[in-house]
Amino acid sequence: MADEMTKGEAPQPGVVTAALLVIGDEILSGRTKDRNIGYIADYLTAIGIDLAEVRIVPDIEAEIVGAVNALRARYTYVFTTGGIGPTHDDITADSIAKAFGVGIDVNPQARAMLLERIPEADLNEARLRMARIPDGATLVVNKVSKAPGFRIGNVIVMAGVPTIMQAMLDEVAPQLATGARMLSETVPANAKEGDIGGPLAAIAAAFPDVSIGSYPFIADDGRPNANLVVRARDPERLAAATAAVRAMVAEEARRQGRS
Amino acid sequence: MADEMTKGEAPQPGVVTAALLVIGDEILSGRTKDRNIGYIADYLTAIGIDLAEVRIVPDIEAEIVGAVNALRARYTYVFTTGGIGPTHDDITADSIAKAFGVGIDVNPQARAMLLERIPEADLNEARLRMARIPDGATLVVNKVSKAPGFRIGNVIVMAGVPTIMQAMLDEVAPQLATGARMLSETVPANAKEGDIGGPLAAIAAAFPDVSIGSYPFIADDGRPNANLVVRARDPERLAAATAAVRAMVAEEARRQGRS
Repeated sequence: MADEMTKGEAPQPGVVTAALLVIGDEILSGRTKDRNIGYIADYLTAIGIDLAEVRIVPDIEAEIVGAVNALRARYTYVFTTGGIGPTHDDITADSIAKAFGVGIDVNPQARAMLLERIPEADLNEARLRMARIPDGATLVVNKVSKAPGFRIGNVIVMAGVPTIMQAMLDEVAPQLATGARMLSETVPANAKEGDIGGPLAAIAAAFPDVSIGSYPFIADDGRPNANLVVRARDPERLAAATAAVRAMVAEEARRQGRS
Repeated sequence: MADEMTKGEAPQPGVVTAALLVIGDEILSGRTKDRNIGYIADYLTAIGIDLAEVRIVPDIEAEIVGAVNALRARYTYVFTTGGIGPTHDDITADSIAKAFGVGIDVNPQARAMLLERIPEADLNEARLRMARIPDGATLVVNKVSKAPGFRIGNVIVMAGVPTIMQAMLDEVAPQLATGARMLSETVPANAKEGDIGGPLAAIAAAFPDVSIGSYPFIADDGRPNANLVVRARDPERLAAATAAVRAMVAEEARRQGRS
């Protein structure tokens, strides 16, 4: 199954995987609603990187270190959002340094970048926190904020503010390895999942190299419906499986006397 | 720090923790935007359960089993959303049974519930999947759908469709242990984080038993601002720390000649 390709074990040839680590108590408390996960999922899918896992952890060093080390060992890339600002609760950079077992200090290049926007008199200890970069990391500049993200090994550390995160992602994306894009087609079931579950399973069994998912929703008229999503990297296999799904949906509509 | 209380290790007295496991390729591909994480975070916080970690994993049994076993060992409760429908890609129930090392079969009570809404003639193999419940689990009924969720050990398995998940959460919540609520106050900084980072850190150091977070945002007028969020379970400590933060913000405003 195409799903196997996102299993997140040692990356397979032609498949590039990623995990996203969202760092912040405010997301877990519900105070702030995450606006980055869906954006990053769309973005990575579009450039041929499979987002294989997401974790949200609190602002606790041990939690960040544990998650980063677990994820960077499993996936091609790990993206993090949040915790790189100037306040005491911004502990991402120090936690990443600890995860990699490297030192961390004010990075002269990052400090110079801050000075492009901040008068030296205002570059206090708090703001200098934003220039603390783990040893061996490269900076991820962005056009919205002068405070850089950074990349160390396969881990890319970004801001939590969506506009800044998005600018950092645009900056780093061209440097990333990408694989064959996962292509997808969506076919509305116009039926209850339970009515098409059997034939859909038969099609899934007939196309073991294609991922077929059924995503139920309640239509505006209150009736249960579902989107049948066919996913594959090979356009011909995608087309063949999608045709089979469309034919099955048409047959079900006929059976129910709706055509 | 209050953060320590959400560390997700062996639950501490008076503290009830939870993890949320979101199951579904569609969230990771970006096709579907999650609408459950923020709702569940708000809900659990309000009833005195600390959401300590969230994971999103694909529809792959090994991934679900691994995540469930990692999370149920660390937190008081684990909630899952998604993958309990009638189609072939709904593998949550079987994966949970595997995680607990128990059998799974059509549960007579669950089957009877389905028959309250579904004519026996329509209760096909696909729909019967929704009655497959791991041995030893108790059903989580809900008023929106006749297909039940279930609870086994400290794991609560819910639907992915928000309206159904919410009904299941309402059903199971009264049965859950809850701890002292984490209370919070929000103080607008009306300043750049970098200007108040120093004094805010001093206040955080003076109130080690209170969690103080700074959440930056870009105001409608394009100016950087931040919400300072003070969190504690003890109302008096919350009030004392919040007063200190308000005084600091007022002093900063005065310093900048804005009052």
